[in-house]
Amino acid sequence: MPLLDRLADIVGAAHVLTQPADIEAYMVEERGLYRGQALAVIRPADTAQTAAVVALCAEAKVAVVPQGGNTGLCGGGIAEAGAVVISTERLNRIRAIDPINFTLIAEAGCVLATLQQAADAVGCLFPLSLGAEGSCRIGGNLSTNAGGVAVLRYGNARDLTLGLEVVLADGRIWNGLRLLRKDNTGYDLKHLFIGAEGTLGIITAASLKLFPKPQEMATALIALPDPTAGLAILAAARRASGDAVTACELVPRIGLELGLAHVAGLRDPFEQPYPWYLLLELSSSRPGGLSESLESVLADALEHGHALDAVLAQSGDQRKALWRIREGVPEAQKKEGGSIKHDVAVPVSRVPEMIERCTHAVEAALPGVRVVAFGHLGDGNTHFNLTQPIGADKATFLARWEEMNRIVHDIVAEMNGSVSAEHGIGRLKIAEMARYKSDVELDLMQRVKRALDPAAVMNPGKVLP
Amino acid sequence: MPLLDRLADIVGAAHVLTQPADIEAYMVEERGLYRGQALAVIRPADTAQTAAVVALCAEAKVAVVPQGGNTGLCGGGIAEAGAVVISTERLNRIRAIDPINFTLIAEAGCVLATLQQAADAVGCLFPLSLGAEGSCRIGGNLSTNAGGVAVLRYGNARDLTLGLEVVLADGRIWNGLRLLRKDNTGYDLKHLFIGAEGTLGIITAASLKLFPKPQEMATALIALPDPTAGLAILAAARRASGDAVTACELVPRIGLELGLAHVAGLRDPFEQPYPWYLLLELSSSRPGGLSESLESVLADALEHGHALDAVLAQSGDQRKALWRIREGVPEAQKKEGGSIKHDVAVPVSRVPEMIERCTHAVEAALPGVRVVAFGHLGDGNTHFNLTQPIGADKATFLARWEEMNRIVHDIVAEMNGSVSAEHGIGRLKIAEMARYKSDVELDLMQRVKRALDPAAVMNPGKVLP
Repeated sequence: MPLLDRLADIVGAAHVLTQPADIEAYMVEERGLYRGQALAVIRPADTAQTAAVVALCAEAKVAVVPQGGNTGLCGGGIAEAGAVVISTERLNRIRAIDPINFTLIAEAGCVLATLQQAADAVGCLFPLSLGAEGSCRIGGNLSTNAGGVAVLRYGNARDLTLGLEVVLADGRIWNGLRLLRKDNTGYDLKHLFIGAEGTLGIITAASLKLFPKPQEMATALIALPDPTAGLAILAAARRASGDAVTACELVPRIGLELGLAHVAGLRDPFEQPYPWYLLLELSSSRPGGLSESLESVLADALEHGHALDAVLAQSGDQRKALWRIREGVPEAQKKEGGSIKHDVAVPVSRVPEMIERCTHAVEAALPGVRVVAFGHLGDGNTHFNLTQPIGADKATFLARWEEMNRIVHDIVAEMNGSVSAEHGIGRLKIAEMARYKSDVELDLMQRVKRALDPAAVMNPGKVLP
Repeated sequence: MPLLDRLADIVGAAHVLTQPADIEAYMVEERGLYRGQALAVIRPADTAQTAAVVALCAEAKVAVVPQGGNTGLCGGGIAEAGAVVISTERLNRIRAIDPINFTLIAEAGCVLATLQQAADAVGCLFPLSLGAEGSCRIGGNLSTNAGGVAVLRYGNARDLTLGLEVVLADGRIWNGLRLLRKDNTGYDLKHLFIGAEGTLGIITAASLKLFPKPQEMATALIALPDPTAGLAILAAARRASGDAVTACELVPRIGLELGLAHVAGLRDPFEQPYPWYLLLELSSSRPGGLSESLESVLADALEHGHALDAVLAQSGDQRKALWRIREGVPEAQKKEGGSIKHDVAVPVSRVPEMIERCTHAVEAALPGVRVVAFGHLGDGNTHFNLTQPIGADKATFLARWEEMNRIVHDIVAEMNGSVSAEHGIGRLKIAEMARYKSDVELDLMQRVKRALDPAAVMNPGKVLP
């Protein structure tokens, strides 16, 4: 019997999609960098069906590409010709939620926002939060070890995970769905699958940590002389607040200026321009005192010249207006013309040095380029983006993408940093893996890959060179 | 040239120990369960020497047993006949400390207390803390994923680690000493070595997270009707305090009574006996308000009957006196006679059920046995210990160790719990691995072992059945 018929026997004919119109949404991706060419898209209803599908593909030596919400930015979920896409979208049940253990168990296809809401409904917080949260799915978040806006306080997707259920490359099911805070019985296998982008197995469910829901929030936009001053304020705020800093985002003057030019309703909260801005947000489930903590940090920062001016949000609307300044940066960059992007990380204390060195290097190589370095100062992750010179041709500018990547990534690598802080590798950054990872590290990764997927069925051509 | 001479060429003859008197301290362990029989103890001075020693042993097919402070409780660092012990004690430098990045880099042989002090000296906290901290070494803490008294708030040793340097089984060095909060470039290899008890390589250095130093602490001993009431208080305290609960320890009445009988200076802080006690401690780097949070939680708990009485520490001495009640339990048990121990974990919300079920089962099997179930309620880890019946013969009682283990571990495993929450596997619990781990999970672990240590040089006979 042909493979597709056998797959239909497992999941039902209605869930084996092969018509171009039916599979279109699974073949395209956000930035149009790749186009998938799958044999079919399979939509299993549960873990057992997923396992049977993988076992059959392994037997037929057909490549398997897991896909969640298809919101990835590196092409990790895009199928090469002849592969089968397994969509987790029907694995969408929350199996358990326990506000006393501060945990929930969710299947891989649960949309991130759904989990946030489920936690909220029992007075808890599931802190993973990112732009795509309305459509990305938790299985994809875990497979890419998603970061987002609360990493400084709560960690990455990896840090929020207590256990996994995984369909292995040969179709067996590993049930590691534990709900324990402590378990030292052998190797911690879940960490192999988190961040592996589906190259070692398909995550079908996860047990996840919840936290007390914040009851108070304090948000400020702070004008800075330079990024180093932002670091001093961050460290002081972590100390003064009981480590309650949830977000610490850096915005350069040019980021605000582009926003003022292109983003409707944005306004400069200060009467004069400043070189840099820091969006600092504290949150706590302990009611009372957080604004006072922030005010005292700001008073001290103003006195020592780390802050040149500051505004505190006095309402939810004011808070949103401050966040719009930060969120407006990538949107405004898009409208300003071509943008060459970097998603890099260095130690938090070296972000200013990284920005300075990379800025000099790209300006020397491409006079007139406008550096828009913004992002998560609190966890060392900078979106070091380049906007085309004024009046330049967009295509000519974008043709220098790889050259600019090389300059920036070489400096970041020399600083023992990361050339993919939160977006992963997928197909997009495989050449960077070959260039920057040591032979020893690549060899270890290849050994793990061969040990868990000897037939190279799982998402071939991704992550590893 | 004989192996030992070649090893002496690498580390110097003074650091190849073979005389019984010289190696004695490396051969014995805490509880006298095992006795090592190593060919020699090698004390390399640095990572390069460690790598050269491992390469030579791999070539000669001689087993390598890494050893840190030799404080483990499961025999993980004890050598079988013919093996070479590599002691990390000379790898004891703190290579870097950065209070702005909140990180330090320490070599494997640094004593845990030394790292705590180094962090403190720059106004930070390194939160890993456990009984053996004056002599255990960080490499061993990481290799066993040590837990300790602050897991609820700061996580296990694994959660505190940003990067590792590891000597692999073939003598190559993997430099993964990153200082990044975000890095999604391929598989996260450090998690393979953490908790692997030296079976996949030797951790030679680690980059570790620091935190703001607490400025305020609030400690209470609370009388409870039952453990379930303790869970309600814990959840309320996590919420009210901004997740500042650092310790939440359960003590049964019998634990306090044994302490009163055997521990000098201990006194009952209440005027009447209560069935259970909860030691609850909050700490925060944000000064002010923490005691008020705790008081309001206690007032509420008293009103709802979750607390029957409570005392708040009003001074450092009072705090120490309350902690002595908790710390006195194992000490008093020892003096009361034979004690059969369990280091188990279940979801926090199911600890009361676990205690109840296990208590009934062991009392039915061994009438008169005295259950002393105490420990880390906050992270679900109970030391479910059994004290011999009054007047029983110690040896006769201890002869039933495995039978009692079986009863308790079977119930814990049925509850999807852990039979080794924080102490690891070593040699001691290998049979439990075979009994309770699924075939799939054991197969995955064996695959990882073969991939990283195909010649089975690294600490053979430990962790894996």
